Amino acid sequence: MRSFASDNAAGVHPRVMDALAGANVDHALAYGDDAWTARATARFRELFGAPVEVVFVWGGTGANVVSLQSLVSPWSSVVCTANAHIAVDECGAPERITGAKLVTFEVPDGKLTPEHLDAAQIGRGDEHHSQATVVSITEATECGTLYTPAEIRALCTRAHAYGMRVHLDGARIANAVAALGCSVRDLTIDAGVDVVSFGGTKNGMMYGEAVVYCDPALGADAKFIRKQSTQLPSKMRFVAAQFEALLADDLWIDNAAHANAMATRLAAATRDIPGVELTREPAVNSVFVRLPHDAIVPLQRRSFFWTWDEPADEVRWMTAFDTTEADIDAFAAVVREVLAG
Amino acid sequence: MRSFASDNAAGVHPRVMDALAGANVDHALAYGDDAWTARATARFRELFGAPVEVVFVWGGTGANVVSLQSLVSPWSSVVCTANAHIAVDECGAPERITGAKLVTFEVPDGKLTPEHLDAAQIGRGDEHHSQATVVSITEATECGTLYTPAEIRALCTRAHAYGMRVHLDGARIANAVAALGCSVRDLTIDAGVDVVSFGGTKNGMMYGEAVVYCDPALGADAKFIRKQSTQLPSKMRFVAAQFEALLADDLWIDNAAHANAMATRLAAATRDIPGVELTREPAVNSVFVRLPHDAIVPLQRRSFFWTWDEPADEVRWMTAFDTTEADIDAFAAVVREVLAG
Amino acid sequence: MRSFASDNAAGVHPRVMDALAGANVDHALAYGDDAWTARATARFRELFGAPVEVVFVWGGTGANVVSLQSLVSPWSSVVCTANAHIAVDECGAPERITGAKLVTFEVPDGKLTPEHLDAAQIGRGDEHHSQATVVSITEATECGTLYTPAEIRALCTRAHAYGMRVHLDGARIANAVAALGCSVRDLTIDAGVDVVSFGGTKNGMMYGEAVVYCDPALGADAKFIRKQSTQLPSKMRFVAAQFEALLADDLWIDNAAHANAMATRLAAATRDIPGVELTREPAVNSVFVRLPHDAIVPLQRRSFFWTWDEPADEVRWMTAFDTTEADIDAFAAVVREVLAG
Amino acid sequence: MRSFASDNAAGVHPRVMDALAGANVDHALAYGDDAWTARATARFRELFGAPVEVVFVWGGTGANVVSLQSLVSPWSSVVCTANAHIAVDECGAPERITGAKLVTFEVPDGKLTPEHLDAAQIGRGDEHHSQATVVSITEATECGTLYTPAEIRALCTRAHAYGMRVHLDGARIANAVAALGCSVRDLTIDAGVDVVSFGGTKNGMMYGEAVVYCDPALGADAKFIRKQSTQLPSKMRFVAAQFEALLADDLWIDNAAHANAMATRLAAATRDIPGVELTREPAVNSVFVRLPHDAIVPLQRRSFFWTWDEPADEVRWMTAFDTTEADIDAFAAVVREVLAG
Repeated sequence: MRSFASDNAAGVHPRVMDALAGANVDHALAYGDDAWTARATARFRELFGAPVEVVFVWGGTGANVVSLQSLVSPWSSVVCTANAHIAVDECGAPERITGAKLVTFEVPDGKLTPEHLDAAQIGRGDEHHSQATVVSITEATECGTLYTPAEIRALCTRAHAYGMRVHLDGARIANAVAALGCSVRDLTIDAGVDVVSFGGTKNGMMYGEAVVYCDPALGADAKFIRKQSTQLPSKMRFVAAQFEALLADDLWIDNAAHANAMATRLAAATRDIPGVELTREPAVNSVFVRLPHDAIVPLQRRSFFWTWDEPADEVRWMTAFDTTEADIDAFAAVVREVLAG
Repeated sequence: MRSFASDNAAGVHPRVMDALAGANVDHALAYGDDAWTARATARFRELFGAPVEVVFVWGGTGANVVSLQSLVSPWSSVVCTANAHIAVDECGAPERITGAKLVTFEVPDGKLTPEHLDAAQIGRGDEHHSQATVVSITEATECGTLYTPAEIRALCTRAHAYGMRVHLDGARIANAVAALGCSVRDLTIDAGVDVVSFGGTKNGMMYGEAVVYCDPALGADAKFIRKQSTQLPSKMRFVAAQFEALLADDLWIDNAAHANAMATRLAAATRDIPGVELTREPAVNSVFVRLPHDAIVPLQRRSFFWTWDEPADEVRWMTAFDTTEADIDAFAAVVREVLAG
Repeated sequence: MRSFASDNAAGVHPRVMDALAGANVDHALAYGDDAWTARATARFRELFGAPVEVVFVWGGTGANVVSLQSLVSPWSSVVCTANAHIAVDECGAPERITGAKLVTFEVPDGKLTPEHLDAAQIGRGDEHHSQATVVSITEATECGTLYTPAEIRALCTRAHAYGMRVHLDGARIANAVAALGCSVRDLTIDAGVDVVSFGGTKNGMMYGEAVVYCDPALGADAKFIRKQSTQLPSKMRFVAAQFEALLADDLWIDNAAHANAMATRLAAATRDIPGVELTREPAVNSVFVRLPHDAIVPLQRRSFFWTWDEPADEVRWMTAFDTTEADIDAFAAVVREVLAG
Repeated sequence: MRSFASDNAAGVHPRVMDALAGANVDHALAYGDDAWTARATARFRELFGAPVEVVFVWGGTGANVVSLQSLVSPWSSVVCTANAHIAVDECGAPERITGAKLVTFEVPDGKLTPEHLDAAQIGRGDEHHSQATVVSITEATECGTLYTPAEIRALCTRAHAYGMRVHLDGARIANAVAALGCSVRDLTIDAGVDVVSFGGTKNGMMYGEAVVYCDPALGADAKFIRKQSTQLPSKMRFVAAQFEALLADDLWIDNAAHANAMATRLAAATRDIPGVELTREPAVNSVFVRLPHDAIVPLQRRSFFWTWDEPADEVRWMTAFDTTEADIDAFAAVVREVLAG
């Protein structure tokens, strides 16, 4: 039985593995001066429908740090939710590397609204306060919820009216696109997003993420920022080859759609188990449930997953591109057994 | 013909590729809580002959930043050579991320001596000056030279006498070990080195380096530093599996010894070509030559390589684990042809 | 009529001015190697009743940054209230200079409790999260409230149990000591505080604050941190001479007690004015009141003061060492006039 | 006898002290919203003959950090001499606070040339290298030498051609203006300098320096940078009042000219003493001499001064605005006595 701990507990999709093997021919100059990088970059430009600037990086925290570094001034604050990955899951990397302050809002569903941006204007122009010049949103959110394209557009419009820039942490953007049935462009360029962390690892790659600058001018110095942030892969072709495979023939959408469907199925398979309280209908590939306090550790021992909200006894189960129906049936049986005491 | 641009223009050794494919089974918890990471860590402890602390990271700049961050105080300076990778090839990552100052010495052969550490004591205890509390050396050096174990020991002894810590950038430590015929332990623990950046990428891996704390107490907080430095791979098993393969059956030594031998051969094949001036006998897998100024660009167009010292018209040719004798013969013929005008 | 904008709108106490003039004799070595600095340091040791380490700095933000830099590790978070000066009034200086993250709690009265420290333990030991290794409290608080010595002791005990260090921002510690009728030692060393920002500017000095390390070992490297944080005054004797005068003959307590008394009087003089809603009884030298929204700007035009909580129409009036009863009567008359429309 | 240790061992000029006393009236809003700051700012605009942006700061290191932070990008390097104050006398503050790298050139006379800027272009556009986007020069230099206006103009022209910005550390700009007989404008705006650290402390003030943005647009965000760099004085009127007095009636020039004349006299009084080797004719208010190694400590014990170049036994004697001819005669006699053994 596969784990429901996270989509990064999964391995690598076979077509991505094939691409890695296929790229292992001859010599290729390091740092991106190779044919794979050129092709993968072209794919991203197709996907976004615009001449975006793209730089490939090692991981998700790196993608976020590079993105934010491209947007902040020294005295900036970055507005985000209190449970944003950049705020609570990156060991303070954004503050240390960019020097900026994070200003967080508690939002139960993980989604900022234009009103949060209004609230962040207190202190605008006053030298005693960091200036809120950047907002970072996550799509799909850390809570497994979704912004609609219209919601992102409203946020970006408000942000730009305040002279702020918008970063979108798209570690699971594929799951969002698959769930919303929209295009990447709908969620990003057309909505007004400035920079996107575009995830690969959680959707079937071995490693690698992309930072996409919707306005290529914003990315003019991205290569220096990437290197300085320790995020420049030397044998770049192997990152690029993975993205090339993932973006080909809609593999990225198929992977994400499958993971989403498995979460829906997992919710259905467990919602009626006594003691399981579904705290939100799954929108993407995560299921959030409240469990009896004393059942959590025994259940984790049978199949590990993470506690989401310790005081509330809320846990998170995640599905991945390779989750099977059999995995779900087996896990649901374990849940039923453990909760039955 | 393979490139002589750098050992990171090479691809991945077949046994490493096999290990990646072999690790792609089932789910494994992310961030290192997996069997591959446990086994690779054990291998490193065997190799160092001590219960070292090991953390795996994405790349070489990341390994250096994590290492230095583990050693510096806010007011530290890090002593190194003027052409150290950390000083000139990392786009200022050490300064930005650790906040420390680098203090550099011009040394033609890339090797520091205890006397450099003496010179770095000026200003000791004076609050106006950064305090030289760390020294970083590279083995094999950026100039393709080697410290003997005795030379490293002398440096470490002097450094420790001054209360300094020693970092060894071992991006090419395999080439050094192969060339010197010594053990890793001779060059590190027994010589007094505190932290090692242990390279994998330039020696046949796809990506991945290790930071090795000779005194495990020094690495007690390494996991926080790694994450904050954006260097924590999520699907860690794939880094660990590569190291496991590389360290098995002396593959790492065989790869390095082969690359070294190819550099010796390349020097022999080109040293008598009119216009080629070998500036130093190759000790590891690099060949440094001075070329006629006007020949450099035409030759780079035929087969790219990097200029090492622009004003001096000195260039660097590097061999890799997969360089063949045929590659060398072909390249030597091209050099001869281009230099003949 | 003097301003009620802040205690730093006041000038310099005459005895402090005399001390500045008195110190302006001959040459004295810069950076603290002078007799005034030696005497002022001795005064602080008397005041704390212990061989504390003391460094003098330019200003309050500087004192806080130096203090925190002495306590944090790179991966630290600093726990504080959401309206702490370090969190909202220093333009992100703590994050930028120390690299640490601030973790804030919303507390209406500006006071942390041991339970906040419990809550901050979530994620302890987990590399994805900054580690809460420092707590910073303010005494008197930004809200004009006071911790009792017992409350500080309880906080410090809990903090130390978690391996955390405690910083006390004492920009207005004099007002706290005067109000509580306790000693500095009661609020700091005996309560378990590790480092204190000891304020001078808001209490009658022209400029200058002190960072006091209750455990002198903690301050062993303070001089480097101070210089690197741009907080080393060159003509140090003039900072030291001011502190010497302020601490002599209880001038610091007398100044603070007077300011506190004036706040009490101001509250009494305005609490019954229709439209004035005292939101808290003054404990030190600030008065917080809610005013009719449309009256705030007209009143500020007559005599400037700062809005404390914009959405709540709550403003802050502050008294100083030199506020007179006539100032209060005049201001109360203006308030009455403006609120009468 | 006054010390020859440094011009910051001197006290405060009487007219500056008078100005401090005169400013100590009533309340004034903190942070620069006061009449003294407005007047002192106007004085600077007169002095520079242009609508420069001016922010007052605490000290010299602070002025340099604020200046550089206004000019650098995250990936910048700052070109300066190897003995620049920012490189060796600020305990790494520029690196820690701005995150930039310093790239230094060894120049015996403390002066950069356009050729140094040419040399700093190596690596331009290459992501592995910090990009040399700023050059910082010191006038008068740390070696007591002077750039002519034409030399500064040549440097700025070259710098701007490379897209670089120019910072001038003018901790002793008054001594330069007095010695060169030129205007401030000649040395700054007309020469192409972008930002100036304008010194006050070493020329008769108690504390306080100014950062002057020749192009006011460059200073648009200076107030945030100043606050974040811990350099915002709260009772600002007292910094401004000092500058107002210093710049009135050419006091700043008279002070500097006197100090310069005293250095010339000191050189004359000591140059013929056996064992004293003047290493350079004094251009401003410093005298550099080589002394017999064993005489240095005994002489320092009689009247302290700093060693400039330890290995070379070169020391620095500095004069100040208040140095008298009697001081020089007395010191020369001591030198003669000690060197006579």
